[in-house]
Amino acid sequence: MNFQAKLAGAVEANNSLLCVGLDPDPEHIPPNKIVSCLVEAIDATCDLVCAYKPNLAFYEQLGPSGYHTLADVLAAIPPAIPTIADAKRGDVGHTAAAYARAIFDQLGFDAATVNPYLGGDSVEPFLERPDKTAFIVCRTSNPGATDIQDLTVEQDGVRKALYVAVAERAAEWNVRGNVGLVAGATYPEDMRRLRTLCPEMPFLVPGIGAQGASLEEAVASGLDAEGRGIIVNASRTILYASGGKDAAAGARNEALRLRDAINRARHALPASQNA
Amino acid sequence: MNFQAKLAGAVEANNSLLCVGLDPDPEHIPPNKIVSCLVEAIDATCDLVCAYKPNLAFYEQLGPSGYHTLADVLAAIPPAIPTIADAKRGDVGHTAAAYARAIFDQLGFDAATVNPYLGGDSVEPFLERPDKTAFIVCRTSNPGATDIQDLTVEQDGVRKALYVAVAERAAEWNVRGNVGLVAGATYPEDMRRLRTLCPEMPFLVPGIGAQGASLEEAVASGLDAEGRGIIVNASRTILYASGGKDAAAGARNEALRLRDAINRARHALPASQNA
Repeated sequence: MNFQAKLAGAVEANNSLLCVGLDPDPEHIPPNKIVSCLVEAIDATCDLVCAYKPNLAFYEQLGPSGYHTLADVLAAIPPAIPTIADAKRGDVGHTAAAYARAIFDQLGFDAATVNPYLGGDSVEPFLERPDKTAFIVCRTSNPGATDIQDLTVEQDGVRKALYVAVAERAAEWNVRGNVGLVAGATYPEDMRRLRTLCPEMPFLVPGIGAQGASLEEAVASGLDAEGRGIIVNASRTILYASGGKDAAAGARNEALRLRDAINRARHALPASQNA
Repeated sequence: MNFQAKLAGAVEANNSLLCVGLDPDPEHIPPNKIVSCLVEAIDATCDLVCAYKPNLAFYEQLGPSGYHTLADVLAAIPPAIPTIADAKRGDVGHTAAAYARAIFDQLGFDAATVNPYLGGDSVEPFLERPDKTAFIVCRTSNPGATDIQDLTVEQDGVRKALYVAVAERAAEWNVRGNVGLVAGATYPEDMRRLRTLCPEMPFLVPGIGAQGASLEEAVASGLDAEGRGIIVNASRTILYASGGKDAAAGARNEALRLRDAINRARHALPASQNA
């Protein structure tokens, strides 16, 4: 099943736009407990989420055991829940094809985040499989996002921020309907602009957890015309909710709270945004 | 020893600005032969190069065995030759720090390529170790490089290409003197512009091998005032030079040819560019 159909199924079945980021932090989990902790967190949240998103950096930092740790975590995710590799890869076409094989064939992810800086031929290997989705890193949630993404670009006499020009390219690259955008919750006005530009694309939305953005503003800015279209990610605030003891119950409670808060924000919107 | 001192030592000892890209391609090397082929290529070229550059994509595509394959290849590189992780990573600060640990601590690389799109805080974890160098992906060698990197940016009434604005940011980020740039040989005029903007930065220069750029133009455009400052990479044209039989001898012959061609191009330049 392709990513978008799987996503729609999980959104419906779990009544959820919440994604849990599976990012093992050695400060919170000892290396020999990572798999068991994350598998318990998955078991405790898999009826509350629309997707899981491991960020590959947190596995790579483990060294030799990282690959197997990630594979074991992925194996615990129920097949009906789509998986997003937060990898932010970007390289020349020949090399990007190797990254796509690593992420889609070897690890079996349903989607990946991809950096646009190297252009269309660097993104294409992630898009040429219509069953997979590539989320183009467009407007990120970090403070430094403004350094490059806010540069003023001029095209055909029109001035716009670079991230807007990137979204326009992403729309051009979307010939197979399998492009999404990364749109940080920390810049809700920018997310609103992206939604106007790309009314039907799925948005992967980081920034509402440890990064402190307003969940209500993010939901109001990012929902599509059908009251969906955003995948709201939280990682640390869910995995480490309990501060150590009974992590699975803590993760479930926090995931439930966030899922329901997102749904309340969806239903609080005027009907035009909430069909 | 820090990257730049190690690089200067290898440039001097081997009279070379050539970097060999260690990118195992399953179409050319069966998976069970990768380590032995690459170790032989290293043994055959390590007196001819100034650096080695594995691109992580080609190891990740191997799946479970990728990490150990890369570690075994790295272990065969003489300690006096600096290693560059071609990783093009870029993520929010907390996550970028995990990538820096993976590349510098776990794998022991001396330098890494880093994507600038997420801004200064995404690059900082790679720069806060003064012994390591980060090559900012600025002007890449692929055809699609123009899609985003050539967008016209306006700053304080001045119009410039985005890659130029990125180079200006890279210069600002260079407070510890450990920033370099990726500057593709396929766009020699752009490399010349970057050299004017960043007279002392090391440039990592892909594109002269399978991508077909002119070696002479790249050398003329990229050399610094001391007739150095470029790290000219070739991967496929060296590793697979022989077409199969006696790959190590083929790699040595092609590395020798390229090293000497680079040196001839250096010495053919007017004295002002070749102190």
